[in-house]
Order: sequence, then structure tokens, then C-alpha cells
Amino acid sequence: MRRILIVGAGRSSSALVRYLLEKSGEEQLEVIIADINTENAAKLVGGHPNGKVIELDIFDVESRKKAVAESDIVISMLPARFHLEIARDCIEFGKNLVTASYVSKELKELDSKVKERGLVFMNEVGLDPGIDHMSAMQVIDRIKGSGARMLLFESFTGGLIAPESDDNLWNYKFTWNPRNVVVAGQGGIAKFIQEGKYKYIPYHKLFRRTEFLSIEGYGKFEAYANRDSLNYREVYGLEDALTLFRGTIRRVGFSRAWNIFVQLGMTDDSYVMQGSEDMTYRDFTNSFLTYKPHDSVELKLRHYLKIDQDDVIWDKLLELDLFNDKKKVGLKDATPAQILQKILMDSWSLKKDDKDMIVMYHKFGFEKEGKKRQIESSMVVVGEDQTYTAMAKTVGLPVAMACLQILNGRVHTPGVQLPLKKEMYQDVLTELEKHGVRFVEKEVEYLGYNPYNLGA
Amino acid sequence: MRRILIVGAGRSSSALVRYLLEKSGEEQLEVIIADINTENAAKLVGGHPNGKVIELDIFDVESRKKAVAESDIVISMLPARFHLEIARDCIEFGKNLVTASYVSKELKELDSKVKERGLVFMNEVGLDPGIDHMSAMQVIDRIKGSGARMLLFESFTGGLIAPESDDNLWNYKFTWNPRNVVVAGQGGIAKFIQEGKYKYIPYHKLFRRTEFLSIEGYGKFEAYANRDSLNYREVYGLEDALTLFRGTIRRVGFSRAWNIFVQLGMTDDSYVMQGSEDMTYRDFTNSFLTYKPHDSVELKLRHYLKIDQDDVIWDKLLELDLFNDKKKVGLKDATPAQILQKILMDSWSLKKDDKDMIVMYHKFGFEKEGKKRQIESSMVVVGEDQTYTAMAKTVGLPVAMACLQILNGRVHTPGVQLPLKKEMYQDVLTELEKHGVRFVEKEVEYLGYNPYNLGA
Repeated sequence: MRRILIVGAGRSSSALVRYLLEKSGEEQLEVIIADINTENAAKLVGGHPNGKVIELDIFDVESRKKAVAESDIVISMLPARFHLEIARDCIEFGKNLVTASYVSKELKELDSKVKERGLVFMNEVGLDPGIDHMSAMQVIDRIKGSGARMLLFESFTGGLIAPESDDNLWNYKFTWNPRNVVVAGQGGIAKFIQEGKYKYIPYHKLFRRTEFLSIEGYGKFEAYANRDSLNYREVYGLEDALTLFRGTIRRVGFSRAWNIFVQLGMTDDSYVMQGSEDMTYRDFTNSFLTYKPHDSVELKLRHYLKIDQDDVIWDKLLELDLFNDKKKVGLKDATPAQILQKILMDSWSLKKDDKDMIVMYHKFGFEKEGKKRQIESSMVVVGEDQTYTAMAKTVGLPVAMACLQILNGRVHTPGVQLPLKKEMYQDVLTELEKHGVRFVEKEVEYLGYNPYNLGA
Repeated sequence: MRRILIVGAGRSSSALVRYLLEKSGEEQLEVIIADINTENAAKLVGGHPNGKVIELDIFDVESRKKAVAESDIVISMLPARFHLEIARDCIEFGKNLVTASYVSKELKELDSKVKERGLVFMNEVGLDPGIDHMSAMQVIDRIKGSGARMLLFESFTGGLIAPESDDNLWNYKFTWNPRNVVVAGQGGIAKFIQEGKYKYIPYHKLFRRTEFLSIEGYGKFEAYANRDSLNYREVYGLEDALTLFRGTIRRVGFSRAWNIFVQLGMTDDSYVMQGSEDMTYRDFTNSFLTYKPHDSVELKLRHYLKIDQDDVIWDKLLELDLFNDKKKVGLKDATPAQILQKILMDSWSLKKDDKDMIVMYHKFGFEKEGKKRQIESSMVVVGEDQTYTAMAKTVGLPVAMACLQILNGRVHTPGVQLPLKKEMYQDVLTELEKHGVRFVEKEVEYLGYNPYNLGA
């Protein structure tokens, strides 16, 4: 039996554990789940003979080292900031490591030691980052391998509510960390390149600069720009591509309405509001409007942000109860962003039977023998229930599959790395297809941003 | 002869030096001006028998201590971050100190030592801070002294171009540090209180939330909110006032046009633009707009920010040459704010004979025996030329006058302080009047924000 140690049994570990337990017979696996709170872990194992739960406080050095030493490979599902200690143990005891997190500077610095010991530390092998890397690299390698030149790469991902559970005007619910949604886009300029021109979008314009995209069978979506589009240039070997753009997917109309919060200042997380605890939702809204006692908060807001009588944005605001003068915020010394999150959670929390949905969409533009073409590739996954969510599946399954690949000696490159090589992505993507995580591709004429090559 | 040591002979020292030299006969003064670069100092002294210039590097501890030790009082006109060493010397040698800068945390910490030695360290005694404190406290003390209760305090200041030199569409030129103008309003929320309601304006809305004000003989102005309105509550003893608002004055229409830069993202100082050095002004503008090679930069901008055909804002942008495709930025690794500053300096730099203008405006609302009244107080000063500017006069004269007050033993309260007490402001304001720095007051009915006491 080969022992896989999974550290951390949070929301994204469900599909991971289930997959490994299912494989445990044929693959001869013992799956050890370590967490400081063993309740969820025990539920996930559900008495499976090849599963085992251990109580582990990762700050208890001795227990942690013992758990690592006794395993054959380690998966860390902890928040990214806790990987480092586990990584050091893995080096000490010569164990491979798998995570779904971005590689931190500190982890990257372990690279030479990891290589010295001939180990594989595979990171960013969840959904985003993870499936985005693998599915993009598979197509990019294929295009380049055919002798074509990459012109354009655009990539979009979104965690949404499934169509069958979509019952509010925003077509959105919190299927993951609400805070990340509220502060999304803050803390830096959105920067990208289109047909060789660098473009910059400040935060207060981000949600009015969306682009539309369509996915067969799922309709139209929109996406706002991520901050980091240019980071992928080197990682994906796209130094010469004229267009690089990454974005976050929402249902059509979400961003234009979200922009109301941005314009008012409700997403600001940098200061504490006076008297936040006793404030009503209406007081909160009124704090961002002029003092005009003759006029209602409603009309002041409509006028300030030019919301027409017949604009459905207004009904979206009403749906959230933003003008309620009875509901209290009830948060002491809260920032606007914290208060807004509270208000949104009243409306956007999942109901018992709600299902989530993950959408990913890539565009690849290329030129071969003077002809320009474009490949569009999309993936949609709907969750089974609130344990085996689309998010848990798309994060956990590739982690599990990457882990088995490494355990079975099919990854030959040592070091702290991302799943960018064929030896890693090929079998994982094939195996993901068997579990319903499938990309649909179509090749069309190059559309890009300047197909007729007009002067910019 | 009593020796006044002035450290720093920058642009704001001209009127200060002239005033003290003019007084040097009757007041028995020797005015020593110390600077690392003696050229400007020598010009200011102009061979006056009671003036003396010494070369001083303030980081040369020995020379600095010697200069302080030999003086009777010290005026520091250095940038605020350099006051601390001088302040410590003043404590060591038992000398009083005068500055026009905000009191830093470090300087404030010297308070008990300053008091122990019975010294006066008078700060914030220039224009803003300075004349604003003194002129406000004079009226507030008078209102409170009459048994009335303060309801409202609003205060506005602006450094502008004089009407006779006002020859561009923005009615604005750089009469002081251009960088401060470009980044004005950034780095924190504008927060104030109106009729007991706290209000918050995010940066991207700041220049659309202006208020108008009129000054007899000078016409209409506008003001956008400062960040710090609530800091003055305790300082001025206005804990119970329902309205506190501070703002920056511009000519009408400036802020609405400035908002175009804010919306585009041109005032952002947080990141470096790719290829800034070789960029044309047109490229710079285009960086903030969508990639649409079929459309002109002009039309893209008009459409993005909804600038109508007949809106004079457009002519303001043209006047700045924002669409010029020949003029190069020529700044390496520059931020948007640095590039914008460069572009504005082409248009907004003072011509040889241009004069500046300082405008200050206060509103005081109060209640006495059930009746509400309001005092409006305004001051306008126009510069003489580019040496004796309105800014240099309104900063330097109160510093000089405060210095003489202290030297003549008329300030009895020791410590690190602001000019908030009658012993300080009374004579300075009277003396300022003789030099053309004069407040015009009128008392009117209380207008406030809610004169009829309607529910908010």
C-alpha cells in the first residue's frame, strides 16, 4: 500500500478524497487525511477501508514531521501561507508534494534543494490556477508544434451559480469566498496587451470595460479584466503574442450593476465607518450620497449615478434591500466592504439544494503559412450538491490525478513547478474528461481585435 | 540687536525676509538667512544692512548648532521632514522656534521638553495651515464668547491664478507644487459631517461632488472636499458642531474637467507605464482607451466618458494637446501621474508677468437664544510678481509676524503649538490687514444644509 497524506480537509477536499478512495483498490493506496478538526475529514472518508483520519495541528512540529515521514507523497490543501513548513519537511524526508496554490516567493526559493533531492513539488494544479494552465498549454503546444506562430491568448474563468439554481436578478450567488468577490479588482491596475498596444483600466472603470463571450448551450457571459494578464507571457512561452488578456466571468449584466457599488465607494476596504454597528442598510447607502433632507435616499442615488426609471439595475439594488431602514448592519468598526459583504450574504448565500457552476473559456489566435486562425475552447462543470460542488471537483480532481501521476513515476522533471509540461497535463486532462471536466473546442477564422490590419 | 535665524530661503521666504528687514530698524533686528545655496537668499536680502546670508548645510551638525546657538529665535522654512534636528537644537540652546508646517508626530513628542524649558514652538502659522487657523479661531472665539453655540464650520482655500493672468480654458495655472495638484485627493477617503450625518466620497467621485461659493468682487468658485475635515473638530473645540467640511477652491468648471483625468486613470501614481519614454501624448491617452483600430482616439474618449459635441470640457482637453502624436513624453519609467504632470506643465506654467491669487473662505453657523445665524468670511490676496507672490505673502507674513510676537514676549504659553490662542492670532491678523491680507465678513441668516429642520 502506498500512503498519500492529505493535509487539510476543507471545502475543496471532497472530490479529491472521493477520487483517491475510489482508486485506492486498483492503485494500492492508503489515503490519510490530517486536519486539526477531524469532523469533516471523517465525513469525507465515510468509513472507507483505505481511508484514515488523523488529528494534526500543523504547528506541532513533531506530529507534522512524523506524518510526512510516514507517507509516500503529500498533498497540502491548506491555505497557501501554511505550505512552507510542510514543504521543508518534504525535503527533509524526501517526499514529493502537490498543492493547488500559487507558488510563493519563499516556496520558489526551495527549488534548488528540491532538485538536489530529485523531488517533484507540483503546484497550481487545481482549477485557476491549474486546469487553466494545463488546458492552455495543451493547445499552445499543439499550435506551436504544427509550426504556427501564436498571435493571441485570452483566458477567462468564473465561479457561478448553476442555471437550475439561478433565481435572483444578479444571476449570481456566493459559491466560494465572498470577501474575494467584494474586493475583486482592487489593489492594482488591470494591465494587458491587445494587438501590441498596452492598455490600462483603473478599478473604478473595470466593471464597465467588460467583454462578452458565448458558450454553446450556456448562452452569453461577460468578463472583466484581471490584473495579471502579462505575468503569463513568460510562463506560457508567449513572448511574441500581440494580445494577452485574462478575465473573470460573470453572467451578463452583473458587472454593470456591481459598478454601482464601486461608484458609491461601498467596496472600499481601507477605512472604518463611523457608527457601523447601529447603522441601518439605508444609513449605509445614504453615507455615500449628498446631504439633502428634502429628497429620498432612493432619488439621490438614482440621480447621482444616473439610473433611469426603466433600468433593471434599480431592481437589482432593491432585491438586496439596500434601502431598508430597519435592518441593522450589526458589525462593529466595519469597513464599507465588510458591510457590503454582510448585505450581499443576506441575498446571495446558497440555498440547501443550490448547485454551483464553473466556466472556463480560452481563445488562441495563431498564424500558419500566412493564414490566421483561432481556436476557442470552453469548459463548463455543474456541481452535484453542496459537498461535491463544481468548485471542489475542478480544484480537487486535478490535484488527485497529478498526485497519482507523480506517485506512479510518470513525472520526470524535478523541482518546484507548475503543470506546464506534457508529461503532467496530458494524462490529467484525459482523466478529467472521464470525470466530466471536458473542454469543447472549435476552430474558426481569426477574429482577434484587428483582423483586417487597419492602423490603430 | 536681536538675531532672527531663518533656515531655508525657498520660494516662500521672500515676503518673510522683506517684512523682517523692513521692521529691522524699529525692532532692532539682525536677520540671518541660512541656506545651502546662498544665491536666492542674497537676492532677498539685497544688500540690506541688517540682513546677512550664511551658507549652511543642515546635516553639518556643528555649523547648524552654532547658527542656532548664536540666534535669539529660529524660523525653519525647510520642508517639514527637516524640522526635527533644528527643533532639538532649539531645545538644547533654549531658543524659540517658528514653522509654517503641520506638526509631525515626532515634533509633538518634544512638547514636554519644550515646556520644561519654557519655550514656544509655534507651528502651522503660514497660510493653510496658518491663516486658516487664526481667522477661524478669531470668529469661533467671538461667537462662543457671545454665548452662542456653534452649529457649522466650513473652510475652503485655494491657490489660483489672478484674474488678470487667467488666460486658459481651465482658469488654472501651477502657482505652487504641480505634483501636489496632480495627486490631490488620493490616498484616503474624503470624510466629513453634515447636519450630524457622516458622509464619504471616494476619490473617483471627488471632483463631481463640488460645491459652489461666491466672493463679492471675484465671482463664483467651486470646492472639492479635503480628506481631513474631522481632524479640526477637537483642534477648534467644535465637538458639538453638526457640520464640519473643509475643501479646496478652484475656478468653476475645473473639477468637472479634471475628473476626465481621474476617470481615465491618468492621475494614478502607483505603477510605471510600459515604454513611457517614447510614448507620444496621443499614445498616453490611448493607453486608457479600448483597442479599436477603426476609431480615432478622440472619438473613443468622447464616447467612453460621454463628452457631448458641445461640451467645453473637450476644448479644455484639446488645449492641453492630449491628442498630439508628435510630442513625446520623454520620461523613462514614468507613472501616469508623472506623465500627466509633464503634459500639464506645458500649458499651465506661469508666464513671466503672471500673478497668483490666494482665496480663503469660511462659513460659521451658530445658534443664540433660539435664533440661527451664519457668518461668511472671505479673503483674497493677489501676488505682486513672481517673487512676492500671493502664496509667499500669505505663508511668509504670518510667520514673520508670529516670530516678532514671540520675540517681543507677547506669547505666554510654552510648548509645541498651533496659533489657536488669542494672544497669538489677534495681533497677527491685525498686522496682516495692514499688509493687504484682509478678511471681509458678513452675517446672514443661517443657511446650513437643513434650515427648515426637515427629516433627513
